[in-house]
Amino acid sequence: MTQVSSPDFVRRHIGPTDADVTTMLKAVGQPSTAALVERALPAGIRAAAELDLKAAPSEPAVIDELAAKAARNQVLTSMIGLGYYGTHTPPVVRRNILENPAWYTAYTPYQPEISQGRLEALLNFQTMVSDLTGLPTAGASLLDEATAVAEAMTLMRRSSKAPADAVLLVDHQVMPQSIAVTQTRALPLGLEVVVADLRAALDESALTEATGGRPIFGVVVQYPGADGGISDWSRLTTAAHDEGALVTVAADLLALTLLTPPAEWGADVAVGTTQRFGVPMGFGGPHAGYMSVRKGLERTLPGRLVGVSVDADGAPAYRLALQTREQHIRREKATSNICTAQVLLAVMASMYAVWHGPRGLSGIAHEVHGKASGLARALQDAGVTLATEAFFDTVKAVVPGQADAVVAAALDRGVNIWRVDANHVSVSVDETTTGAQLDLVASAFGAGPVIATDGEPSWPEDLHRTSAFLTHPVFNSHHSETAMLRYLRTLADRDYALDRGMIPLGSCTMKLNATTEMEAVTWPEFANLHPFAPADQTEGIREVIADLEQWLCAITGYDSVSLQPNAGSQGELAGLLAIHAYHQANGESDRNVCLIPASAHGTNAASAVMAGMKVVVVKTAPSGEIDLDDLRAKVTQHNTTLAAIMVTYPSTHGVFEDTISELCDLVHHAGGQVYLDGANLNALVGMAQPGQFGGDVSHLNLHKTFCIPHGGGGPGVGPIGVRSHLAPYLPNHPFSAEAGPDTGVGPISAAPFGSASILPISWAYVRLMGGAGLTRATETAILSANYLATRLDEHYPVLYSGEDGLVAHECIIDLRDLTKVSGVTVDDVAKRLIDYGFHAPTMSFPVAGTFMIEPTESESLEELDRFCDAMIAIRGEIQEVIDGGVDVADSVLRGAPHTAYSLVGQWDHPYTREQAAYPVGVDPLRKYWSPVRRVDGAKGDRNLICSCPPPEAFES
Amino acid sequence: MTQVSSPDFVRRHIGPTDADVTTMLKAVGQPSTAALVERALPAGIRAAAELDLKAAPSEPAVIDELAAKAARNQVLTSMIGLGYYGTHTPPVVRRNILENPAWYTAYTPYQPEISQGRLEALLNFQTMVSDLTGLPTAGASLLDEATAVAEAMTLMRRSSKAPADAVLLVDHQVMPQSIAVTQTRALPLGLEVVVADLRAALDESALTEATGGRPIFGVVVQYPGADGGISDWSRLTTAAHDEGALVTVAADLLALTLLTPPAEWGADVAVGTTQRFGVPMGFGGPHAGYMSVRKGLERTLPGRLVGVSVDADGAPAYRLALQTREQHIRREKATSNICTAQVLLAVMASMYAVWHGPRGLSGIAHEVHGKASGLARALQDAGVTLATEAFFDTVKAVVPGQADAVVAAALDRGVNIWRVDANHVSVSVDETTTGAQLDLVASAFGAGPVIATDGEPSWPEDLHRTSAFLTHPVFNSHHSETAMLRYLRTLADRDYALDRGMIPLGSCTMKLNATTEMEAVTWPEFANLHPFAPADQTEGIREVIADLEQWLCAITGYDSVSLQPNAGSQGELAGLLAIHAYHQANGESDRNVCLIPASAHGTNAASAVMAGMKVVVVKTAPSGEIDLDDLRAKVTQHNTTLAAIMVTYPSTHGVFEDTISELCDLVHHAGGQVYLDGANLNALVGMAQPGQFGGDVSHLNLHKTFCIPHGGGGPGVGPIGVRSHLAPYLPNHPFSAEAGPDTGVGPISAAPFGSASILPISWAYVRLMGGAGLTRATETAILSANYLATRLDEHYPVLYSGEDGLVAHECIIDLRDLTKVSGVTVDDVAKRLIDYGFHAPTMSFPVAGTFMIEPTESESLEELDRFCDAMIAIRGEIQEVIDGGVDVADSVLRGAPHTAYSLVGQWDHPYTREQAAYPVGVDPLRKYWSPVRRVDGAKGDRNLICSCPPPEAFES
Repeated sequence: MTQVSSPDFVRRHIGPTDADVTTMLKAVGQPSTAALVERALPAGIRAAAELDLKAAPSEPAVIDELAAKAARNQVLTSMIGLGYYGTHTPPVVRRNILENPAWYTAYTPYQPEISQGRLEALLNFQTMVSDLTGLPTAGASLLDEATAVAEAMTLMRRSSKAPADAVLLVDHQVMPQSIAVTQTRALPLGLEVVVADLRAALDESALTEATGGRPIFGVVVQYPGADGGISDWSRLTTAAHDEGALVTVAADLLALTLLTPPAEWGADVAVGTTQRFGVPMGFGGPHAGYMSVRKGLERTLPGRLVGVSVDADGAPAYRLALQTREQHIRREKATSNICTAQVLLAVMASMYAVWHGPRGLSGIAHEVHGKASGLARALQDAGVTLATEAFFDTVKAVVPGQADAVVAAALDRGVNIWRVDANHVSVSVDETTTGAQLDLVASAFGAGPVIATDGEPSWPEDLHRTSAFLTHPVFNSHHSETAMLRYLRTLADRDYALDRGMIPLGSCTMKLNATTEMEAVTWPEFANLHPFAPADQTEGIREVIADLEQWLCAITGYDSVSLQPNAGSQGELAGLLAIHAYHQANGESDRNVCLIPASAHGTNAASAVMAGMKVVVVKTAPSGEIDLDDLRAKVTQHNTTLAAIMVTYPSTHGVFEDTISELCDLVHHAGGQVYLDGANLNALVGMAQPGQFGGDVSHLNLHKTFCIPHGGGGPGVGPIGVRSHLAPYLPNHPFSAEAGPDTGVGPISAAPFGSASILPISWAYVRLMGGAGLTRATETAILSANYLATRLDEHYPVLYSGEDGLVAHECIIDLRDLTKVSGVTVDDVAKRLIDYGFHAPTMSFPVAGTFMIEPTESESLEELDRFCDAMIAIRGEIQEVIDGGVDVADSVLRGAPHTAYSLVGQWDHPYTREQAAYPVGVDPLRKYWSPVRRVDGAKGDRNLICSCPPPEAFES
Repeated sequence: MTQVSSPDFVRRHIGPTDADVTTMLKAVGQPSTAALVERALPAGIRAAAELDLKAAPSEPAVIDELAAKAARNQVLTSMIGLGYYGTHTPPVVRRNILENPAWYTAYTPYQPEISQGRLEALLNFQTMVSDLTGLPTAGASLLDEATAVAEAMTLMRRSSKAPADAVLLVDHQVMPQSIAVTQTRALPLGLEVVVADLRAALDESALTEATGGRPIFGVVVQYPGADGGISDWSRLTTAAHDEGALVTVAADLLALTLLTPPAEWGADVAVGTTQRFGVPMGFGGPHAGYMSVRKGLERTLPGRLVGVSVDADGAPAYRLALQTREQHIRREKATSNICTAQVLLAVMASMYAVWHGPRGLSGIAHEVHGKASGLARALQDAGVTLATEAFFDTVKAVVPGQADAVVAAALDRGVNIWRVDANHVSVSVDETTTGAQLDLVASAFGAGPVIATDGEPSWPEDLHRTSAFLTHPVFNSHHSETAMLRYLRTLADRDYALDRGMIPLGSCTMKLNATTEMEAVTWPEFANLHPFAPADQTEGIREVIADLEQWLCAITGYDSVSLQPNAGSQGELAGLLAIHAYHQANGESDRNVCLIPASAHGTNAASAVMAGMKVVVVKTAPSGEIDLDDLRAKVTQHNTTLAAIMVTYPSTHGVFEDTISELCDLVHHAGGQVYLDGANLNALVGMAQPGQFGGDVSHLNLHKTFCIPHGGGGPGVGPIGVRSHLAPYLPNHPFSAEAGPDTGVGPISAAPFGSASILPISWAYVRLMGGAGLTRATETAILSANYLATRLDEHYPVLYSGEDGLVAHECIIDLRDLTKVSGVTVDDVAKRLIDYGFHAPTMSFPVAGTFMIEPTESESLEELDRFCDAMIAIRGEIQEVIDGGVDVADSVLRGAPHTAYSLVGQWDHPYTREQAAYPVGVDPLRKYWSPVRRVDGAKGDRNLICSCPPPEAFES
């Protein structure tokens, strides 16, 4: 047999051709990429050996391998419930959102002008959550239901006036994974979680009994409960409020179409998942969690919030609201470390609501309830006792001593149901459940055929929903597929994503998300697995996970990896919790100081706070490097309490600092641990291993370095790698022995393997590239950044570089002097880049008044040059301001971005329409039009509107 | 068991809601849709019973049913060859073209301004074919290789000066299905086809020996041959030219990257398939056939041709060239009845070439040849004799008496190879063939492992290609996936398809192509079947075909259906051939007159000519109906020679004519057959059955009524339904007993079931809608047309209507009087509609100076109103011209369409920029921008350029 195919994916992934590389090397004055990297990267940290990962022979071969793994999953009918349900993704939504690069390759909508499409979709999401829960302000999604409960805990703690020793009271029928995650998160914050049965009394006596009279800052209940039971929480809520506590309800949005919404019985906060709104279970995720709050709490919401404002022409425009709340600004004063959302999934869920509309959703809910009611009746007719009287979709049956037998009988019939304990099982029905499946499940109990009821609510009348919801036209207009398709296209057309051009965001690694990598995500064998399905049904996906863990170890030099954290922020927290637990196990509980360089990502500090650590900032030297003298001083000062340092490598200044080894030694000698933030791992893969050159733990961003698309602001995956001494403290999960060590810190995400369904993307990337390909990608990313730095330096000074004048995989260009003399701000340049057809680089991070530019390896030389040409042309426009010919206030820069519509009216600017819209280098046949002009963020924050504006608002 | 899900697809497919229907009924003054239809449709033709077709319970249920059928196909490794090869569709092309509604819902690019994206892709296709074959002018694709050979036959006949009794000489190693189709097509034209072994001599003696000295008008050879053999055809070509004959070569494009191109040894015409350029085998189709010709023959090319011209601003712009060649203009003088292309597949094939570039394609060819050479060597080493010395990808082995055994042994190993005869088998290698598969095949011969060679050509040096190809930048720029993705997006963004808005083209039925209908097309179980695979491996797809045949019979009232014709034109020809054969079988061979109304689709007349019939035109009465007096006269006049009448119902005037029954009776009484053109079947489904109210045969357009998307101008499927007396004369196929009756007229397409891989689309549509849903769709289509007619009539008179003032499913509005008084032409209005965000209706068919408008059932009332509002606003613009305030030559109508770029320069029009680009009703957030201004078609035709222009042409 002969090897007949050669892998060509590497050259499909990498933008510059061999000829381009030659051109670029010449520009940066280096003889070869090897020489470039050798000069840029400190010799001391260089990996000893080449990456020992084999590439697959071809893209089809990788698909074949993944298909073979998929075939090892057994997709049975899931009636497990517990927050994960079968759902029909509307095909028009799957094809035109989930499988459409215009949606999935977009970045977080920090540049609102070129993100109006997904901002509208997110506003629909917020309106949907707000309408269904009845609470006026909803955020643009959280990571999952369990972390949303944990966020609600801290929100209630800071909003409650209860004393410092007050506890969080959690009903025992809150989803078990939510309780577990909340406990993981409460521990480092010193918050006590009391889990109790609050349904026995459902009033103030329940509170007293549960806490023994201790003060309470918050109560969490589930609606309906994990066992399916529906309770009237109104009296308990009143009682909690009387005690100064807030009440959070974890609520099922589908049930809320029929159930009295939480706001109407007094809940302060609602949280949950929107999975069953058209997002496949995917072995646990990703899905969009949600949170909505009552009036008065809107400025305490964690995560992102979309609001309505206006643009420079006064037209309505959307943008992220209350940006100053963001962790990246608040740093160690942050109240949450959430810095992203689950945008792609939130968009899908919102479109499910747009597609079905209020009547459609109620219809589905009626049908689901009718099926559950029919099942309940069939069981009762067969003499089975039910554990709950009022329920929506979940029937809990009392089967004394027979739970295992019933579960086994159902399994024989191809259905997974949930074993609650030896004497109880529960069965959850969803929109996909068929009559035949109901009959099969009934027969597993020895019951006869199921006759579904008409689905009229069987619970007490007090809890029948009477209030309207989703009355906005957007939920009542796009119900034919033709109309929906056009709505999705219209929104997509407003946005700028990687399918249009370069997104040179420093620190974000916006590289190719190849189609082959994306394919398996929507395969039913991965998409339709319940996260708590029996292990022997999920061998294929767990093989993917095991492979990926092993490969990430090989790449990073760590000994163990956990893929559970479903965002970078969660990885940071998990890593710090591991450090914390390690110190505790060594009897050094008082090690709680976390050193963080001034230039660090804000998330670092926020995560440290969430991990219960005290943040001490280390200064930056004028060269941009960490000030080692200050570090030495701080290490000495906190010698006995030093827990860790969090440091990004290469630094957030885009430089390979020579001092990294010395830094690690210093901290280690003082008994501290080194947390190496993996945000910039795209500069290291195949070159250097954090786990070998000094790191004890790192989180990686699979959505940066490992090709999971950014999804317009999520999903992300933030696995952590640790050296062996920290391995016992990785996350684990109550329902999955395979998910982590028994000695672990508890779950950090709702699902055992976090966002499992998108892990095949990274698996495919590593498999397609192999060690040599990955290394070449890193070399190219570094070459491209140095090429940009070289071309731009004479126009905008490059702020930092290493000893050889080289940067790493990104570079910072400094506009501060230009701003001083011209008044032209980074914002002006960022918006002007839109007119040229580009997404702006990262603005003012880590240094205010600068751009951080990361080209990645996937951009071609042609696109790099197009970007440089645009930046240089803009520099010329700035010069005209400096030279005094143009007033900055009426300059083409301040006027940017220009919409097509802005061209048609009166024109009294000192620049022409052509200069505005078609500056040099812009091909009219490729012109991207911003749908709105510059958005006024401040105005929207003063007058916060976070749900869909009426159509009249758009009339000009 | 209980039925728990209700089908809601019907309301997803149909645009107007119940409330909308009420509004629309009120406007047209009818109490109900039932009443409307009863008045519109003549009682005499109304179907006696409701359609007895059950709907599936839901979209997921339909997918489950299709998946079950797919699972009954067995996808083995195909090494059958014969024009169908395994290929890797580049994933970025599959996802962003084949699965992207922006590409697949587009219409034929008759409106060039809003079709520049696919026109560029087709120009790439033409350039690719032209470069590889070396012949300067290539068309924009033909239906398949076999029909391309047949078209070449007629092209050579009309271009050769050989006497009328000259024959067509075909080498016996031309693909057998091509020979068969050519024979089918030659027979009615009275052309004689001589099949002979021309390779014995390869010079003039071969010609003489084959024909016995008779004159020859054309020669067809295959390169490489069906048996894989490569011959040097140069001397034979010279000899043929000396005799006044033309030479057509059917050539494999992949092989041509290594083989001397046909132009260099003198071929006049090259034809073939582009299937192996990334288009799945799909059980036979659809794929894009190709044809290219030498200088001097370009104006004789059948089918569509894209050419370069300029727009009103002088910018390069593409459009269909030489439109006057079209069958719809030439009618009975047409030289071909081809009226469409395989655009979607041609686009895919061209993008395969863009993706791989010249070096990539050569690389694949080398690899394929290397694998074939290795296999050949292994067989020879094992003592197997080969039948051909020089080959590219196909190895033909001599296995005396053992062919069945070897085929069976290969089958045991999971590989299909081709049994040539009892003593020969052939094995074809392609880019997907793995080393393991080669070893398995070798072992089926008892040979040892295969060592592939380096793929250097093993054929004589004279036939080594030395000339360059695909040197244009477009084939050398988009080789990274990022670059390719952006190129595809850029092209898609230039075009207007159903994902942007309504395409109200009369006679084209541009309705929803639902995602669920599209899904199975790309499933490997349908996509990867060879059309000649053993029947027991293709049970699933053949079940789909059998179901669909049966359902189409139920819908049309015919007794038998053939799905083989892969375009409406081919259906027409097949139907007429059946009629011809029927008359012959009855001893009435001289019945050869075909009556065709003046208002008929031009294709009808062209097809009649292709079927060897004599066209006699029947007049139209002033009312727009067929002039029955003239018909009676013509029937009497041609009483003994009357073969058929071809009539469209409802008529091309958009009216249900009351006289249809009388017409059918008249023709039948005279011994003629009634061909009812099914173009307008969308007005009949569930209401009336052509097979019951007088038709003997009809073709249906699955790409109109049955939801196969138009693909930007193909693929189409044109099945025919016949009453039982014509059933023995349906098409059949030499390699598939199941494809048609033994007594059939021969194959009409290369593959037994034509474009089989897209039949699941129509299957899913019928299954999703059921009888009641289909009927409701028809009612709604009729209601929508009447609503439009009612709203527009006072602004533009509706030209024809039935006795009750009602139209059928489309209506014609008359602009002739307006043109007379204002100078504003239908062209002006069509182009102005682009500014308003619409695709124009059908222009000047069937009456010059009019629009034919067909809304279909899928457009919402909102969109219908948006269209009416635009038309009414345009009427106001015309009035301004009439009133004399505006000169038509500088009116906003004549200036249309306006590009965004046209707004930025000097503006000296009597209308404002805002009036130009944002007329009343245009939402700036939904604005579609034409990428070019009005295209000058005539200029391009005078100076014909049909391959990619150099990039400098676009510099402004």
